[in-house]
Amino acid sequence: MNPLLKEIRHSPLLWMLVFVPVVLAAEQIAPSAHTVLFVLAVLAIVPLAALLSLATESVAEKTGDAIGGLLNATLGNLTELIIATAALQAGEYTLVKASIAGAIVTNVLFMLGASFLLGGLRHHVQEYNRAGGRLYSGLLLLATIALLAPSAVADLNLAQGEVVTQKLSAGLAILLIAAYGSGLFFSLKTHKELFASEDHGEAGGGHWPLGLAVGTLIVVTVLVALVSEIFVASVQKAGETLGMSPAFVGFIIVALVGAAAEMAVAFSAARKDRLDMSVSIALGSASQIALFVAPVLVLLSYVIGPKPMDLQFWPGAVTMVMISAVTASFITNGGRSAWFIGLLLIFIYAIFAMTLYTLPPRS
Amino acid sequence: MNPLLKEIRHSPLLWMLVFVPVVLAAEQIAPSAHTVLFVLAVLAIVPLAALLSLATESVAEKTGDAIGGLLNATLGNLTELIIATAALQAGEYTLVKASIAGAIVTNVLFMLGASFLLGGLRHHVQEYNRAGGRLYSGLLLLATIALLAPSAVADLNLAQGEVVTQKLSAGLAILLIAAYGSGLFFSLKTHKELFASEDHGEAGGGHWPLGLAVGTLIVVTVLVALVSEIFVASVQKAGETLGMSPAFVGFIIVALVGAAAEMAVAFSAARKDRLDMSVSIALGSASQIALFVAPVLVLLSYVIGPKPMDLQFWPGAVTMVMISAVTASFITNGGRSAWFIGLLLIFIYAIFAMTLYTLPPRS
Amino acid sequence: MNPLLKEIRHSPLLWMLVFVPVVLAAEQIAPSAHTVLFVLAVLAIVPLAALLSLATESVAEKTGDAIGGLLNATLGNLTELIIATAALQAGEYTLVKASIAGAIVTNVLFMLGASFLLGGLRHHVQEYNRAGGRLYSGLLLLATIALLAPSAVADLNLAQGEVVTQKLSAGLAILLIAAYGSGLFFSLKTHKELFASEDHGEAGGGHWPLGLAVGTLIVVTVLVALVSEIFVASVQKAGETLGMSPAFVGFIIVALVGAAAEMAVAFSAARKDRLDMSVSIALGSASQIALFVAPVLVLLSYVIGPKPMDLQFWPGAVTMVMISAVTASFITNGGRSAWFIGLLLIFIYAIFAMTLYTLPPRS
Repeated sequence: MNPLLKEIRHSPLLWMLVFVPVVLAAEQIAPSAHTVLFVLAVLAIVPLAALLSLATESVAEKTGDAIGGLLNATLGNLTELIIATAALQAGEYTLVKASIAGAIVTNVLFMLGASFLLGGLRHHVQEYNRAGGRLYSGLLLLATIALLAPSAVADLNLAQGEVVTQKLSAGLAILLIAAYGSGLFFSLKTHKELFASEDHGEAGGGHWPLGLAVGTLIVVTVLVALVSEIFVASVQKAGETLGMSPAFVGFIIVALVGAAAEMAVAFSAARKDRLDMSVSIALGSASQIALFVAPVLVLLSYVIGPKPMDLQFWPGAVTMVMISAVTASFITNGGRSAWFIGLLLIFIYAIFAMTLYTLPPRS
Repeated sequence: MNPLLKEIRHSPLLWMLVFVPVVLAAEQIAPSAHTVLFVLAVLAIVPLAALLSLATESVAEKTGDAIGGLLNATLGNLTELIIATAALQAGEYTLVKASIAGAIVTNVLFMLGASFLLGGLRHHVQEYNRAGGRLYSGLLLLATIALLAPSAVADLNLAQGEVVTQKLSAGLAILLIAAYGSGLFFSLKTHKELFASEDHGEAGGGHWPLGLAVGTLIVVTVLVALVSEIFVASVQKAGETLGMSPAFVGFIIVALVGAAAEMAVAFSAARKDRLDMSVSIALGSASQIALFVAPVLVLLSYVIGPKPMDLQFWPGAVTMVMISAVTASFITNGGRSAWFIGLLLIFIYAIFAMTLYTLPPRS
Repeated sequence: MNPLLKEIRHSPLLWMLVFVPVVLAAEQIAPSAHTVLFVLAVLAIVPLAALLSLATESVAEKTGDAIGGLLNATLGNLTELIIATAALQAGEYTLVKASIAGAIVTNVLFMLGASFLLGGLRHHVQEYNRAGGRLYSGLLLLATIALLAPSAVADLNLAQGEVVTQKLSAGLAILLIAAYGSGLFFSLKTHKELFASEDHGEAGGGHWPLGLAVGTLIVVTVLVALVSEIFVASVQKAGETLGMSPAFVGFIIVALVGAAAEMAVAFSAARKDRLDMSVSIALGSASQIALFVAPVLVLLSYVIGPKPMDLQFWPGAVTMVMISAVTASFITNGGRSAWFIGLLLIFIYAIFAMTLYTLPPRS
């Protein structure tokens, strides 16, 4: 445990880890003090995200950027999957769908955009391996088309519309998981040389032994999940107190905090000119949510939900996911980046945030 | 006739040509045995498609891949044009439109996708001349925009909406034919060097004399047309018996069998690493249907139809054509292919097929 | 003044400058002779546009193509801004919005398309620096997304829909201006080397002193604005007399004549194989209208209009702007051009023009 404790001693940011037990205790003592719990949860998530960043970098050093990025995206999205499963059991399907669409949009536009912007402020022009970007944006386009289908069928106003939409959603869920599996097989097995990153030499972060790094990854992920649940339970009420619309809270705030851990890693990689890793985390995470988390939730809903969940999203959400997927395709086509491209992505995200913010609260 | 008979003797697949006279006779004897006629027609089309493949390859060897592909697309679509003309005379405009949209979508997503997949299973990464892909996807985007216009006008609910849509459709038809002609002039005359394929050396298939090859092409095309008509007449009833929705039959089954001949050629070219030819056949055929067959049918409807046909398609059909055209643009942008790209296209096609399949039968 | 007079003496086209005082006088004498004023205004705008072309080329020679193009776009759009301000004061918001959307579509599709076509008829294949094209089409996509948002909110049929749309439009206007400013900072300051044109050597046009060139630019821009106003005032009535729908007049005729000055420069640059300049003018002008002129008008409407103007456009207009922006992204991706690409853009424009033309006149 030596390298971990040494890291904590030297990094003041990690001293904020003290908020983790504080928020867990506070939730036991005063479960209805929503705004306090909301602030404490955010304060606890920040150092956990930083710690996750260090552990992941230690593992990634031993595996190459692409695999490191995939690993990161997997662990980061465990959080989303755990939270969404809880909401699923409670039958809160609208919340589940909003957080899925919000997570896709936030990862593609904000996480990728801020990575390009932060990297571009330090490096004039950055190059990255565009194979990863093209794979993930292809998968995202496929997922977007799959989201369009149930909405189109619902528009027909069929007699047994709900049954048809439900059957179709289950079929699409299986197809999306198959597509995700094929993509992994392609990028990790048959064509892995296309996704290889150049060796950047300058190894950053702590050189932890693999066992410690993996152990830390797992423990911290569980802690993030616990704190995130308190966060989600308190955020809606806190949002109301702060005058935000529920659409804005579900789409933007939950997604931003939920992705905080991955963002810390992606941003730090971008500043170290390891954009391959940033792109892998941002787009890999988005496509994992769209092609793995969402379909798994649809199939899980048959087992644990009060009734099956379908893939029919609010039309505005489908439009935002589609714009994100098409933008990702255009952006990653070139394999080069500068600060302005990052800013452009953030501006698109700001248009969505602004639009959701102006919507009046549910009355 | 020597090389042709030799070919038939050596290829067991071509022995199935015996089903051609069988289905033609069966149609005379039992015109209402729909499911039997449907099966016989499919069995007859398969060897005809294979024979067409051999003849076209012989011609293509003497003309270069791009021209050979164009030639193929022209003859392959004669079938579609003949069938659609018959439906037009009967006033079955919904069937005509469904088969046009289905043929475009099937050629772009399934034929191109399966070519990439089959080629990619044998070759690690395949390169192709992307000039052809870009030309055809540009033409397809133009055709998609032309299909959007009459729907947009129809949405305005004008007093004389039908007259306006009809006048607009006639104008658009002339514009599309002009665009198609310009594209041919560009690719075959002024800039033909951009579309030249590399010499692949390994000439496959039979080295037939040009006269025999062209003669076979023509005779087989006529036979395909005859058998296809029996197929179309029986497929709706057979589909009902087999529990398929009419939308699924029109869009998927008719389009798949209608394009069987071209598919045989495109797939065989892909496996021989002659992807230029596969792309030319798949996208060339799709754009020929969109920019030549469809507008010619609109103009023909003034002469032979009970009333003029317009270009206003069902919104779902326009969306599917648009997704196909945009996907073709993204995919062919790189000029490289691997098995996963092909699978991705097939997955998109499967989403469409699944959606159409779940629609309830007309009641 | 010597070089200017010499230029006029040698160029018969510039003798048409005599129509400038004629149309200004005619407007005083017979302000209701709409069709006559319309013809005279067009006759006066043509030589003014040609003169503007000469002056701008003289300035551009001293600054490089990209800056010259930007300068041109700025001065060309002063006209649009002046006209729209007048319409704003009169509360004619529908006209303002139609002319904004029409100008974007006309610049992207017709001006760029005709530049590619005219350049391509003289040069087999033309190369251009695609950095400019990518920057501008990125900005146009951002603007398109900003136009989608208020329409989406309006579709929700909220209780206080108009207030929400208005607040959102003001926020979006500020965001668009910030994005435009960032784009200028990027292309003129931090990454200007990406946008540098090759030195073409063959300096065309008159080698005027900088003072004379700038002076001519300013004076002619004012004259264009004056004559354009007469043109706009007469064009609707003249359109009715000639049987055109108001949508066609606002979108196509006003936009074509309004951009005549910039078109003369863009076309002449294309024929001289200076496509960087043509792309800069066409797309730079379109993005300036979308990200600068339109948002400034929204903000100005709070000061000088009878009530605030929002950014909610007619859905057909949003669709046309979106198709233009996506097309610009696809087209400029390659950085190469030939006559057929130009023709394709013009065909898309013709589909829009044809559709608007068939709409019946307001009754």
